[in-house]
Amino acid sequence: MATDQSASSRHWHGTACACGAIDVHCHVVPFSFPDYLAGLAPRDWPAMVAADGCRRTMVVDGRNYRTLDGAAWDAERRLEDMERMGIAVQALSPMPELFSYWMDAVSAAELLRYVNDTIAAMVEKSPSHFVGLGAVPLQDVGAAIAELQRLIGDHGFAGVEIGSNVNGAAVGDPRFLPFFAEAERLGAAVFVHAVRPAGMDRLVGPAQLQQVLAYPTDVGLAAASVLTGGLMRAHPKLRIAFSHGGGTLASLLPRLREGAKVFGPVADAVAGDPYAEARKLYVDSLVYDAPTLRHLATIFGTDRIVVGTDYPFNFHERAPLGRIEAAFEDPAVRARLTAENAAAFLGIEEH
Amino acid sequence: MATDQSASSRHWHGTACACGAIDVHCHVVPFSFPDYLAGLAPRDWPAMVAADGCRRTMVVDGRNYRTLDGAAWDAERRLEDMERMGIAVQALSPMPELFSYWMDAVSAAELLRYVNDTIAAMVEKSPSHFVGLGAVPLQDVGAAIAELQRLIGDHGFAGVEIGSNVNGAAVGDPRFLPFFAEAERLGAAVFVHAVRPAGMDRLVGPAQLQQVLAYPTDVGLAAASVLTGGLMRAHPKLRIAFSHGGGTLASLLPRLREGAKVFGPVADAVAGDPYAEARKLYVDSLVYDAPTLRHLATIFGTDRIVVGTDYPFNFHERAPLGRIEAAFEDPAVRARLTAENAAAFLGIEEH
Repeated sequence: MATDQSASSRHWHGTACACGAIDVHCHVVPFSFPDYLAGLAPRDWPAMVAADGCRRTMVVDGRNYRTLDGAAWDAERRLEDMERMGIAVQALSPMPELFSYWMDAVSAAELLRYVNDTIAAMVEKSPSHFVGLGAVPLQDVGAAIAELQRLIGDHGFAGVEIGSNVNGAAVGDPRFLPFFAEAERLGAAVFVHAVRPAGMDRLVGPAQLQQVLAYPTDVGLAAASVLTGGLMRAHPKLRIAFSHGGGTLASLLPRLREGAKVFGPVADAVAGDPYAEARKLYVDSLVYDAPTLRHLATIFGTDRIVVGTDYPFNFHERAPLGRIEAAFEDPAVRARLTAENAAAFLGIEEH
Repeated sequence: MATDQSASSRHWHGTACACGAIDVHCHVVPFSFPDYLAGLAPRDWPAMVAADGCRRTMVVDGRNYRTLDGAAWDAERRLEDMERMGIAVQALSPMPELFSYWMDAVSAAELLRYVNDTIAAMVEKSPSHFVGLGAVPLQDVGAAIAELQRLIGDHGFAGVEIGSNVNGAAVGDPRFLPFFAEAERLGAAVFVHAVRPAGMDRLVGPAQLQQVLAYPTDVGLAAASVLTGGLMRAHPKLRIAFSHGGGTLASLLPRLREGAKVFGPVADAVAGDPYAEARKLYVDSLVYDAPTLRHLATIFGTDRIVVGTDYPFNFHERAPLGRIEAAFEDPAVRARLTAENAAAFLGIEEH
């Protein structure tokens, strides 16, 4: 696979084309995980066990984390579903619970290499329909950079998926700057997804509210941390996208802009108009609502929204293109949202 | 002062009228606090000490919490500022750090009685311009109910201000249902304000980001907890408002609606359309942005937004009516947002 690791703003990863809709937010779980051979396995080392029918359950630390069907690991099955959803290209990323930031970094690196190689094998099966977004052990920034280099250099991945926080530290924390510097240098797209979110003790109701309410909350705080941490000023060519429509960032931005007018230290932190800074970020379309999608377009611009579905999990957008058509009449805007923006974000050539 | 404690939906508290704009979100800090006489003072028992000029600093546990000028405690000064801001009536509530949920309940009740009596004295000075929203020690629901009864029965307050969470428990937690039952019975308005918010470890930047980013985050989670906890179904006549435009709730709602379609337990928790439930809440206008205000109107309805300014703190809305005029052309909508909705929320008669 041809790769271009120069710092120019457009890169060519794999052979996927932007001739159809591109889904930047969909996940992979491997059919199985390797045994841990270096001694006593870390508590969070996952295993897949057979469930009902052809489904399999990922077990972590003795608990059933999630039961999945073949769509999670089977390329052929995905291609069928993609055709039904109108998706031409999927950017494959690990299920976020696989990030393993909470594991020792050496074990996490081993697990993530396996997960990333699994994704690479899926891309290999249909390189015109899949691109890779790997995961890296960000609890050790040096190890994360090494895996990033392997993903881009050896696998020709489009980039990486990272968590909205790493053991509580939001992505805008300065400790991650060397990682983003390398992502910028390599032209690697960075897709930020919620994981182990803030606000869990504020939820009143069933466990699924973690995904429903705390995920977008954590993504919003993560995106805000990028604005107040100055990431895009430090690395202006970085291409970074936030899941779930940027989460709650749309609700936080006006108050952040006003706060910067009132508080000198906040003004210093955002160094300009936070809205202008927000327009340097990509967000996905995964908000399940046409008016909200239009509201996002007024904030981030129609050149910054990319399709995201959360396929193949139960809670996923089944008609991503219909949602965009319901929100926008203009064919040029629809084309940007369904493919062009994602091609620019991922560094996929249109041809 | 005439008070009406029946459970009918409109109540008459004090002599303030809805002939002009009503600010439901503005705070009071007393000029001084009493010494704690019952032994060793709780660590968080506050004191006011002289600062530069005529300003005074609230000191808590040996640290300077905030330095304030006379607007915080001086009724005459407020009336001048209100005239400049175009505000006819202020609903006076304590600075949220005075909630004292983290103090032992007996000491907190004593402190809050003092704070509430200070507000009552301000209302007494100009009952046509002020109504009271007191604070109650919600770490002890029984004690909170007792103080609520005193506020409505003895002081003729319009209602109470409560925190978005009480030591981490969001307002939708079932433990608070008996308190809300009594608020409904008394016809007391409940204004929910951010305090000690979730997400603090996700902030990258100066301390003020607590107010700027974590406050609306916590309010959004609090409002969501009311929807998933079924508060308005249990107490349909309760009048409850959320500060900062409902915080991030606007960003969370579409995902909550979709989550209820996918997850049975989430459907059970919200028991219907979360948007319909959200329209039973009031939110204030404190979002500093006309497009966001219009977006809130599409979600909550133009009969549910009330003026909020955060006066007299540095970070407050100085032109609340201009913001509403910038967002809405229709004089009827403007009238609802500036006065009629707040009159309904607070139970102030229009005459």
